[in-house]
Amino acid sequence: MKLLEEKVLQEGIAVNENILKVDSFINHQIDPVLMKAIGEDFADHFKDCGITKVVTIESSGIAPAFSTALAMQAPLLILKKSPSKVLNENMYQTIVTSYTKGASYELTLASHLISEHDHVLIIDDFLANGEAATGAIRLIRKAHATVAGIGILIEKSFQPGRAKLEEQGFSIYSQVRIAKLDKDVIELMP
Amino acid sequence: MKLLEEKVLQEGIAVNENILKVDSFINHQIDPVLMKAIGEDFADHFKDCGITKVVTIESSGIAPAFSTALAMQAPLLILKKSPSKVLNENMYQTIVTSYTKGASYELTLASHLISEHDHVLIIDDFLANGEAATGAIRLIRKAHATVAGIGILIEKSFQPGRAKLEEQGFSIYSQVRIAKLDKDVIELMP
Repeated sequence: MKLLEEKVLQEGIAVNENILKVDSFINHQIDPVLMKAIGEDFADHFKDCGITKVVTIESSGIAPAFSTALAMQAPLLILKKSPSKVLNENMYQTIVTSYTKGASYELTLASHLISEHDHVLIIDDFLANGEAATGAIRLIRKAHATVAGIGILIEKSFQPGRAKLEEQGFSIYSQVRIAKLDKDVIELMP
Repeated sequence: MKLLEEKVLQEGIAVNENILKVDSFINHQIDPVLMKAIGEDFADHFKDCGITKVVTIESSGIAPAFSTALAMQAPLLILKKSPSKVLNENMYQTIVTSYTKGASYELTLASHLISEHDHVLIIDDFLANGEAATGAIRLIRKAHATVAGIGILIEKSFQPGRAKLEEQGFSIYSQVRIAKLDKDVIELMP
Protein backbone atom coordinates (compact mmCIF):
# COMPACT_ATOMS: atom_id res chain seq x y z
CA MET A 1 0.00 0.00 0.00
CA LYS A 2 1.72 3.10 -1.35
CA LEU A 3 0.50 5.56 1.31
CA LEU A 4 1.73 3.44 4.24
CA GLU A 5 5.00 2.61 2.47
CA GLU A 6 5.70 6.32 2.05
CA LYS A 7 4.84 7.04 5.69
CA VAL A 8 7.11 4.21 6.91
CA LEU A 9 10.00 5.53 4.79
CA GLN A 10 9.39 9.14 5.88
CA GLU A 11 8.53 8.78 9.55
CA GLY A 12 9.55 5.27 10.60
CA ILE A 13 12.70 5.13 12.70
CA ALA A 14 14.92 2.11 12.22
CA VAL A 15 16.61 1.64 15.58
CA ASN A 16 18.60 -1.48 14.72
CA GLU A 17 18.26 -4.60 12.53
CA ASN A 18 15.11 -5.66 14.41
CA ILE A 19 13.29 -2.61 15.70
CA LEU A 20 11.26 -0.19 13.61
CA LYS A 21 9.57 2.60 15.55
CA VAL A 22 6.28 3.74 14.07
CA ASP A 23 4.92 5.45 17.16
CA SER A 24 4.33 8.81 15.44
CA PHE A 25 1.62 7.40 13.13
CA ILE A 26 0.57 3.87 14.22
CA ASN A 27 1.35 2.88 17.78
CA HIS A 28 1.37 5.93 19.99
CA GLN A 29 0.02 8.73 17.81
CA ILE A 30 -2.50 7.81 15.10
CA ASP A 31 -3.14 9.79 11.96
CA PRO A 32 -6.90 9.23 11.39
CA VAL A 33 -6.76 9.94 7.66
CA LEU A 34 -3.99 7.36 7.13
CA MET A 35 -5.73 4.87 9.43
CA LYS A 36 -9.02 5.23 7.55
CA ALA A 37 -7.19 4.52 4.28
CA ILE A 38 -5.52 1.47 5.87
CA GLY A 39 -8.92 0.05 6.86
CA GLU A 40 -10.40 0.70 3.43
CA ASP A 41 -7.44 -1.01 1.79
CA PHE A 42 -7.90 -4.15 3.92
CA ALA A 43 -11.66 -4.10 3.30
CA ASP A 44 -11.04 -3.86 -0.43
CA HIS A 45 -8.43 -6.64 -0.45
CA PHE A 46 -10.60 -9.10 1.50
CA LYS A 47 -13.98 -8.02 0.08
CA ASP A 48 -14.74 -11.39 -1.56
CA CYS A 49 -13.80 -13.57 1.42
CA GLY A 50 -17.20 -13.58 3.14
CA ILE A 51 -15.78 -11.98 6.31
CA THR A 52 -18.28 -11.99 9.21
CA LYS A 53 -15.93 -10.67 11.93
CA VAL A 54 -12.66 -8.80 12.19
CA VAL A 55 -10.36 -9.97 15.01
CA THR A 56 -7.35 -8.25 16.50
CA ILE A 57 -5.10 -8.41 19.54
CA GLU A 58 -5.00 -5.58 22.03
CA SER A 59 -3.75 -2.99 21.86
CA SER A 60 -1.77 -1.76 18.80
CA GLY A 61 -4.06 -3.64 16.44
CA ILE A 62 -7.27 -2.00 17.67
CA ALA A 63 -7.23 1.20 15.60
CA PRO A 64 -6.44 -0.43 12.21
CA ALA A 65 -8.80 -3.34 12.93
CA PHE A 66 -11.61 -0.99 13.94
CA SER A 67 -11.00 1.04 10.79
CA THR A 68 -11.24 -2.20 8.76
CA ALA A 69 -14.39 -3.31 10.60
CA LEU A 70 -15.94 0.08 9.89
CA ALA A 71 -15.13 -0.18 6.19
CA MET A 72 -16.48 -3.77 6.06
CA GLN A 73 -19.45 -3.04 8.35
CA ALA A 74 -18.52 -6.14 10.34
CA PRO A 75 -18.18 -6.48 14.14
CA LEU A 76 -14.70 -6.27 15.65
CA LEU A 77 -13.48 -8.72 18.29
CA ILE A 78 -10.55 -7.66 20.45
CA LEU A 79 -8.58 -10.58 21.88
CA LYS A 80 -7.70 -9.56 25.42
CA LYS A 81 -4.12 -9.99 26.62
CA SER A 82 -5.05 -10.76 30.20
CA PRO A 83 -8.46 -11.79 31.43
CA SER A 84 -10.24 -8.87 33.05
CA LYS A 85 -12.08 -9.37 36.30
CA VAL A 86 -15.38 -8.76 34.55
CA LEU A 87 -14.70 -11.21 31.71
CA ASN A 88 -14.85 -14.44 33.61
CA GLU A 89 -17.47 -16.69 32.06
CA ASN A 90 -16.87 -19.14 29.25
CA MET A 91 -13.62 -18.14 27.60
CA TYR A 92 -11.30 -19.57 24.99
CA GLN A 93 -7.76 -19.06 26.23
CA THR A 94 -4.24 -19.66 24.95
CA ILE A 95 -0.71 -18.68 25.97
CA VAL A 96 1.39 -16.67 23.50
CA THR A 97 5.16 -16.39 23.90
CA SER A 98 6.66 -13.41 22.14
CA TYR A 99 10.35 -13.82 21.27
CA THR A 100 10.45 -10.17 20.16
CA LYS A 101 9.23 -8.93 23.52
CA GLY A 102 10.72 -11.71 25.62
CA ALA A 103 7.44 -12.30 27.44
CA SER A 104 4.41 -14.56 27.57
CA TYR A 105 0.80 -13.51 27.89
CA GLU A 106 -2.60 -15.11 27.90
CA LEU A 107 -5.00 -14.32 25.05
CA THR A 108 -8.69 -14.69 25.78
CA LEU A 109 -11.88 -14.64 23.76
CA ALA A 110 -15.38 -14.93 25.20
CA SER A 111 -16.96 -17.98 23.62
CA HIS A 112 -20.41 -16.40 23.13
CA LEU A 113 -18.95 -13.78 20.75
CA ILE A 114 -17.84 -16.25 18.05
CA SER A 115 -19.29 -19.35 16.42
CA GLU A 116 -18.45 -22.05 13.90
CA HIS A 117 -20.28 -19.98 11.27
CA ASP A 118 -17.83 -17.06 11.51
CA HIS A 119 -15.32 -16.27 8.78
CA VAL A 120 -12.70 -14.19 10.48
CA LEU A 121 -10.22 -11.63 9.20
CA ILE A 122 -7.26 -11.21 11.59
CA ILE A 123 -5.71 -7.71 11.54
CA ASP A 124 -2.47 -6.84 13.35
CA ASP A 125 0.08 -4.05 13.15
CA PHE A 126 3.26 -6.14 12.81
CA LEU A 127 4.16 -9.60 11.55
CA ALA A 128 7.61 -10.80 12.62
CA ASN A 129 7.82 -14.32 14.03
CA GLY A 130 4.08 -14.84 13.83
CA GLU A 131 3.49 -15.78 17.49
CA ALA A 132 0.61 -13.35 18.01
CA ALA A 133 -1.17 -14.36 14.79
CA THR A 134 -0.65 -18.04 15.62
CA GLY A 135 -2.18 -17.49 19.06
CA ALA A 136 -5.16 -15.73 17.51
CA ILE A 137 -5.59 -18.61 15.05
CA ARG A 138 -5.56 -21.14 17.93
CA LEU A 139 -8.39 -19.26 19.67
CA ILE A 140 -10.44 -18.96 16.48
CA ARG A 141 -10.01 -22.69 15.85
CA LYS A 142 -11.11 -23.51 19.38
CA ALA A 143 -14.39 -21.84 18.39
CA HIS A 144 -14.46 -23.94 15.17
CA ALA A 145 -14.62 -20.67 13.22
CA THR A 146 -12.72 -20.16 9.95
CA VAL A 147 -9.69 -17.91 9.49
CA ALA A 148 -10.48 -16.36 6.12
CA GLY A 149 -7.44 -14.10 5.93
CA ILE A 150 -4.68 -12.25 7.77
CA GLY A 151 -4.05 -8.54 7.19
CA ILE A 152 -0.82 -6.97 8.44
CA LEU A 153 0.26 -3.32 8.32
CA ILE A 154 4.01 -3.93 8.45
CA GLU A 155 5.67 -7.26 7.77
CA LYS A 156 9.29 -7.87 8.65
CA SER A 157 9.85 -10.12 5.67
CA PHE A 158 13.31 -11.08 6.93
CA GLN A 159 11.68 -12.92 9.83
CA PRO A 160 9.85 -16.26 9.54
CA GLY A 161 6.26 -15.23 10.39
CA ARG A 162 4.90 -15.22 6.84
CA ALA A 163 6.49 -18.56 5.93
CA LYS A 164 5.12 -20.22 9.09
CA LEU A 165 1.59 -18.97 8.40
CA GLU A 166 1.67 -19.74 4.67
CA GLU A 167 2.81 -23.31 5.44
CA GLN A 168 -0.47 -23.72 7.28
CA GLY A 169 -2.35 -22.49 4.22
CA PHE A 170 -3.32 -19.01 5.40
CA SER A 171 -3.75 -16.09 3.04
CA ILE A 172 -1.67 -13.09 4.21
CA TYR A 173 -1.82 -9.56 2.87
CA SER A 174 0.80 -7.15 4.21
CA GLN A 175 0.48 -3.48 3.29
CA VAL A 176 4.21 -2.88 3.76
CA ARG A 177 6.89 -5.57 3.46
CA ILE A 178 10.31 -4.75 4.87
CA ALA A 179 13.26 -6.61 3.39
CA LYS A 180 15.92 -5.24 5.71
CA LEU A 181 16.31 -3.02 8.76
CA ASP A 182 19.45 -1.53 10.22
CA LYS A 183 20.23 1.63 12.15
CA ASP A 184 18.64 4.40 10.00
CA VAL A 185 18.13 1.93 7.11
CA ILE A 186 14.70 0.73 5.93
CA GLU A 187 14.66 -1.37 2.76
CA LEU A 188 11.30 -2.42 1.31
CA MET A 189 10.78 -5.65 -0.60
CA PRO A 190 11.09 -5.05 -4.36
CA MET B 1 -26.80 9.85 23.85
CA LYS B 2 -29.97 7.90 23.09
CA LEU B 3 -28.38 5.14 20.96
CA LEU B 4 -25.79 4.20 23.58
CA GLU B 5 -28.33 4.44 26.43
CA GLU B 6 -30.56 1.96 24.61
CA LYS B 7 -27.64 -0.39 23.96
CA VAL B 8 -26.56 -0.26 27.63
CA LEU B 9 -30.10 -1.04 28.78
CA GLN B 10 -30.52 -3.83 26.20
CA GLU B 11 -27.09 -5.51 26.23
CA GLY B 12 -25.28 -4.27 29.33
CA ILE B 13 -25.05 -6.83 32.12
CA ALA B 14 -25.18 -5.49 35.66
CA VAL B 15 -23.15 -7.98 37.68
CA ASN B 16 -23.42 -6.24 41.04
CA GLU B 17 -23.63 -2.68 42.43
CA ASN B 18 -20.26 -1.79 40.89
CA ILE B 19 -19.70 -3.82 37.75
CA LEU B 20 -21.42 -3.27 34.41
CA LYS B 21 -20.30 -5.58 31.62
CA VAL B 22 -20.41 -4.03 28.17
CA ASP B 23 -18.10 -6.49 26.46
CA SER B 24 -20.58 -7.39 23.70
CA PHE B 25 -20.52 -3.87 22.19
CA ILE B 26 -17.68 -1.77 23.68
CA ASN B 27 -14.85 -3.65 25.36
CA HIS B 28 -14.45 -7.04 23.77
CA GLN B 29 -16.71 -6.96 20.72
CA ILE B 30 -17.25 -3.61 18.99
CA ASP B 31 -20.22 -2.70 16.88
CA PRO B 32 -18.68 -0.38 14.23
CA VAL B 33 -21.95 1.40 13.42
CA LEU B 34 -22.55 2.26 17.09
CA MET B 35 -18.89 3.23 17.59
CA LYS B 36 -18.97 5.55 14.57
CA ALA B 37 -22.05 7.27 16.01
CA ILE B 38 -20.31 7.57 19.40
CA GLY B 39 -17.35 9.35 17.78
CA GLU B 40 -19.59 11.67 15.78
CA ASP B 41 -21.53 12.55 18.93
CA PHE B 42 -18.32 13.52 20.80
CA ALA B 43 -17.07 15.48 17.76
CA ASP B 44 -20.34 17.36 17.62
CA HIS B 45 -20.40 18.09 21.36
CA PHE B 46 -16.82 19.44 21.44
CA LYS B 47 -16.81 21.04 17.98
CA ASP B 48 -16.30 24.61 19.26
CA CYS B 49 -13.49 23.78 21.72
CA GLY B 50 -10.56 24.18 19.31
CA ILE B 51 -9.46 20.56 19.81
CA THR B 52 -6.04 19.83 18.24
CA LYS B 53 -5.58 16.29 19.59
CA VAL B 54 -7.71 13.49 21.00
CA VAL B 55 -6.09 11.54 23.86
CA THR B 56 -7.07 8.19 25.32
CA ILE B 57 -5.69 5.46 27.55
CA GLU B 58 -5.01 2.01 26.22
CA SER B 59 -6.83 -0.13 25.53
CA SER B 60 -10.64 0.11 25.94
CA GLY B 61 -10.61 3.81 25.02
CA ILE B 62 -8.86 3.31 21.67
CA ALA B 63 -11.85 2.47 19.47
CA PRO B 64 -14.14 5.31 20.66
CA ALA B 65 -11.25 7.78 20.72
CA PHE B 66 -10.17 6.81 17.21
CA SER B 67 -13.76 7.16 16.04
CA THR B 68 -13.84 10.65 17.60
CA ALA B 69 -10.47 11.60 16.08
CA LEU B 70 -11.74 10.46 12.69
CA ALA B 71 -14.88 12.57 13.01
CA MET B 72 -12.82 15.59 14.17
CA GLN B 73 -9.97 14.97 11.70
CA ALA B 74 -7.53 15.39 14.59
CA PRO B 75 -4.61 13.12 15.54
CA LEU B 76 -5.15 10.55 18.29
CA LEU B 77 -2.61 10.02 21.08
CA ILE B 78 -2.77 6.73 22.97
CA LEU B 79 -1.33 6.93 26.49
CA LYS B 80 0.57 3.69 26.99
CA LYS B 81 0.02 1.71 30.17
CA SER B 82 3.55 0.40 30.37
CA PRO B 83 6.51 1.75 28.48
CA SER B 84 7.36 -0.48 25.53
CA LYS B 85 10.96 -1.33 24.82
CA VAL B 86 10.87 0.78 21.68
CA LEU B 87 9.41 3.84 23.40
CA ASN B 88 12.34 4.88 25.49
CA GLU B 89 13.32 8.42 24.63
CA ASN B 90 11.90 11.54 26.26
CA MET B 91 8.68 10.53 27.96
CA TYR B 92 6.20 12.09 30.32
CA GLN B 93 5.29 9.48 32.91
CA THR B 94 2.92 9.16 35.85
CA ILE B 95 1.63 6.38 38.11
CA VAL B 96 -2.12 5.69 38.19
CA THR B 97 -3.68 3.65 40.98
CA SER B 98 -7.03 2.13 40.08
CA TYR B 99 -9.23 1.34 43.06
CA THR B 100 -11.70 -0.40 40.73
CA LYS B 101 -9.06 -2.79 39.45
CA GLY B 102 -6.94 -2.90 42.58
CA ALA B 103 -3.75 -2.22 40.66
CA SER B 104 -1.27 0.50 39.74
CA TYR B 105 0.20 1.15 36.33
CA GLU B 106 2.49 3.64 34.67
CA LEU B 107 1.05 5.91 31.98
CA THR B 108 3.49 7.28 29.43
CA LEU B 109 3.41 9.86 26.66
CA ALA B 110 6.28 10.64 24.31
CA SER B 111 7.08 14.32 24.78
CA HIS B 112 7.64 15.03 21.07
CA LEU B 113 4.01 14.17 20.28
CA ILE B 114 2.44 16.99 22.32
CA SER B 115 3.18 20.67 22.92
CA GLU B 116 1.97 23.65 24.92
CA HIS B 117 -0.10 24.69 21.89
CA ASP B 118 -2.30 21.58 22.01
CA HIS B 119 -5.92 21.67 23.14
CA VAL B 120 -6.71 18.13 24.09
CA LEU B 121 -9.95 16.17 24.27
CA ILE B 122 -9.66 13.16 26.60
CA ILE B 123 -11.91 10.21 25.65
CA ASP B 124 -12.38 7.15 27.84
CA ASP B 125 -14.91 4.34 28.07
CA PHE B 126 -15.77 4.56 31.79
CA LEU B 127 -15.69 7.25 34.46
CA ALA B 128 -15.96 5.92 38.02
CA ASN B 129 -13.45 7.27 40.54
CA GLY B 130 -11.66 9.33 37.93
CA GLU B 131 -8.16 7.94 38.51
CA ALA B 132 -7.43 7.24 34.84
CA ALA B 133 -8.66 10.67 33.68
CA THR B 134 -6.70 12.36 36.47
CA GLY B 135 -3.55 10.52 35.38
CA ALA B 136 -4.10 11.58 31.77
CA ILE B 137 -4.58 15.19 32.92
CA ARG B 138 -1.30 15.06 34.86
CA LEU B 139 0.57 13.94 31.73
CA ILE B 140 -1.08 16.60 29.55
CA ARG B 141 -0.17 19.27 32.11
CA LYS B 142 3.43 18.09 32.20
CA ALA B 143 3.48 19.01 28.50
CA HIS B 144 1.89 22.41 29.35
CA ALA B 145 -0.94 21.53 26.95
CA THR B 146 -4.57 22.42 27.71
CA VAL B 147 -7.31 19.92 28.60
CA ALA B 148 -10.21 21.32 26.60
CA GLY B 149 -12.74 18.63 27.55
CA ILE B 150 -13.38 15.10 28.77
CA GLY B 151 -15.70 12.75 26.89
CA ILE B 152 -16.91 9.56 28.58
CA LEU B 153 -19.05 6.77 27.15
CA ILE B 154 -20.45 5.50 30.44
CA GLU B 155 -20.33 7.41 33.71
CA LYS B 156 -21.07 5.71 37.00
CA SER B 157 -22.68 8.80 38.45
CA PHE B 158 -22.91 7.19 41.89
CA GLN B 159 -19.11 7.29 42.12
CA PRO B 160 -17.07 10.45 42.75
CA GLY B 161 -15.16 10.79 39.43
CA ARG B 162 -17.29 13.55 37.91
CA ALA B 163 -17.32 15.65 41.09
CA LYS B 164 -13.53 15.37 41.46
CA LEU B 165 -12.95 16.48 37.87
CA GLU B 166 -15.55 19.26 37.93
CA GLU B 167 -13.97 20.66 41.11
CA GLN B 168 -10.83 21.19 39.05
CA GLY B 169 -12.86 23.07 36.45
CA PHE B 170 -12.98 20.45 33.70
CA SER B 171 -15.85 20.16 31.26
CA ILE B 172 -17.19 16.60 31.17
CA TYR B 173 -19.65 15.14 28.70
CA SER B 174 -20.87 11.60 29.41
CA GLN B 175 -22.99 9.88 26.78
CA VAL B 176 -24.62 7.62 29.36
CA ARG B 177 -24.97 8.43 33.07
CA ILE B 178 -25.81 5.57 35.39
CA ALA B 179 -27.55 6.44 38.65
CA LYS B 180 -27.55 2.97 40.15
CA LEU B 181 -26.33 -0.54 39.47
CA ASP B 182 -27.29 -3.77 41.16
CA LYS B 183 -27.50 -7.38 40.07
CA ASP B 184 -29.59 -7.21 36.84
CA VAL B 185 -30.55 -3.58 37.60
CA ILE B 186 -29.36 -0.59 35.53
CA GLU B 187 -30.91 2.77 36.39
CA LEU B 188 -30.02 5.79 34.27
CA MET B 189 -29.88 9.34 35.62
CA PRO B 190 -33.20 11.13 35.01
